[in-house]
Amino acid sequence: GRESNMKEKLRVAICQMETVPDKGENLKKAREMLAEAGMLRADIAVLPEMFNCPYDIRFFAGAAEGEAGDSCRMLAEEAAFHNMVVVGGTIPERDGDRLYNTCFVYDGQGQRLARYRKHHLFDIDIPGQVSFRESRVLSSGMGDRFFMAGGHRFGLAICYDIRFPEFIQQLSMGGAEAIVIPGAFNHVTGPAHWELLARTRAVDNQSYVLMAAPARSRNKGGYQSHGHSMIADPWGTVVATAGEDEAVVVEELDFSLVEKVRRELPLLSGRTKDDPVL
Amino acid sequence: GRESNMKEKLRVAICQMETVPDKGENLKKAREMLAEAGMLRADIAVLPEMFNCPYDIRFFAGAAEGEAGDSCRMLAEEAAFHNMVVVGGTIPERDGDRLYNTCFVYDGQGQRLARYRKHHLFDIDIPGQVSFRESRVLSSGMGDRFFMAGGHRFGLAICYDIRFPEFIQQLSMGGAEAIVIPGAFNHVTGPAHWELLARTRAVDNQSYVLMAAPARSRNKGGYQSHGHSMIADPWGTVVATAGEDEAVVVEELDFSLVEKVRRELPLLSGRTKDDPVL
Repeated sequence: GRESNMKEKLRVAICQMETVPDKGENLKKAREMLAEAGMLRADIAVLPEMFNCPYDIRFFAGAAEGEAGDSCRMLAEEAAFHNMVVVGGTIPERDGDRLYNTCFVYDGQGQRLARYRKHHLFDIDIPGQVSFRESRVLSSGMGDRFFMAGGHRFGLAICYDIRFPEFIQQLSMGGAEAIVIPGAFNHVTGPAHWELLARTRAVDNQSYVLMAAPARSRNKGGYQSHGHSMIADPWGTVVATAGEDEAVVVEELDFSLVEKVRRELPLLSGRTKDDPVL
Repeated sequence: GRESNMKEKLRVAICQMETVPDKGENLKKAREMLAEAGMLRADIAVLPEMFNCPYDIRFFAGAAEGEAGDSCRMLAEEAAFHNMVVVGGTIPERDGDRLYNTCFVYDGQGQRLARYRKHHLFDIDIPGQVSFRESRVLSSGMGDRFFMAGGHRFGLAICYDIRFPEFIQQLSMGGAEAIVIPGAFNHVTGPAHWELLARTRAVDNQSYVLMAAPARSRNKGGYQSHGHSMIADPWGTVVATAGEDEAVVVEELDFSLVEKVRRELPLLSGRTKDDPVL
């Protein structure tokens, strides 16, 4: 009925999966973990950034697809089969001669709710520690920054986007109560900043923040994902987290807590006419 | 000579002082702690938010002064005597029939470098835990958000301002390499968010962040300052901190680290034309 559209609590599951070079293996693994999320009665399941290939710019072109490809078909099928919203982490998306790092979201009927293309490309060069240049192969995009689930507005961002606080702040100012961020921090930036940024974006936006990472790879030669998929509540408390290995992280989002925190400490309504326009 | 204007390293001292209802006692204590900073060869000394009275709205009007008053005269005198920049935390500043929460900064000759009036007023109401409404007695202000010291640009903000990430981000985008924030978080918000926000603003702005708090009061009936004056480096590492009690926190700011972090992870130049204008 109409009254049941707005749920005070929603059950979310983050599927922290390891990725390998074989795309078919990754899609099979994603199906299995989404099935586990379904068995755990998740309303929303979230896959990590680049779930259909290793997070390595040499694999992106080979794994790239459009929405008609196997990866999105799998997402839509699993969403409909388990009657849950699926936030499909990201895949390398081919559009003409461009590649994007793209998040597709499907509802419980398998209909597309959102397509968001990563806006801020990850370029880092810490000599002797980690070097990565997404901009060599990917284009900067944009798209749907919000979707509705269970009567609540969710915001979307991808990995490096989280480092731009005013960009994330647009999500809560635009009505989001929870922010979903597939991401793949590494063995250098992960220990330094992953939890810190998850918690602070939750505090700043007075929203739940869901961070979905790939598991650390057993292939020690490749990019080493930090893992630690994580959920921070609107007060900045980490309420659920994984380690480095594969895991399904399940937690109930309580939207009355969002309302309570915003009432007690009215940050979102505290902007003035002299603040930057978000 | 001209070449010595730009120093690669600057020594800073945060004076975490306890405040009491007697303004004369507070000015005396501030002089003593600034003298200690001077003895420790600080280039810059920082006092906490509301250093001339308890952080309690009932005391603000009584302690309020203009720049011609005792508090600013003391700041200018100590700055000149010790030949160091003094960031005078804040005082309740009277201007006509308005009160502001204002930071005055003086250079080593006792000349005013900046006057910044707290922009975001602190209104919180967590039933049974903490309630505080600055907006009952103070007006929102603005003013000089930057000053120069040792050839480097410093940004200024006051306490609750730190909760507005896009407002703080304007400081690094405007050239600041270090951000000075006198603040008085309490026994609820302090443990939850003080270090978290200090570290994240340092990471987001790739700048040093200096947080200067009053010591926790021995008067257990009043507002309980969290203390923990703190310096976070541009990678988000806490490099110096106090506990709850009075202390002078001394640390050397190494501006080559600011340059290194910004080169390795180019966040500040990573904004696009579709990002909010800061």
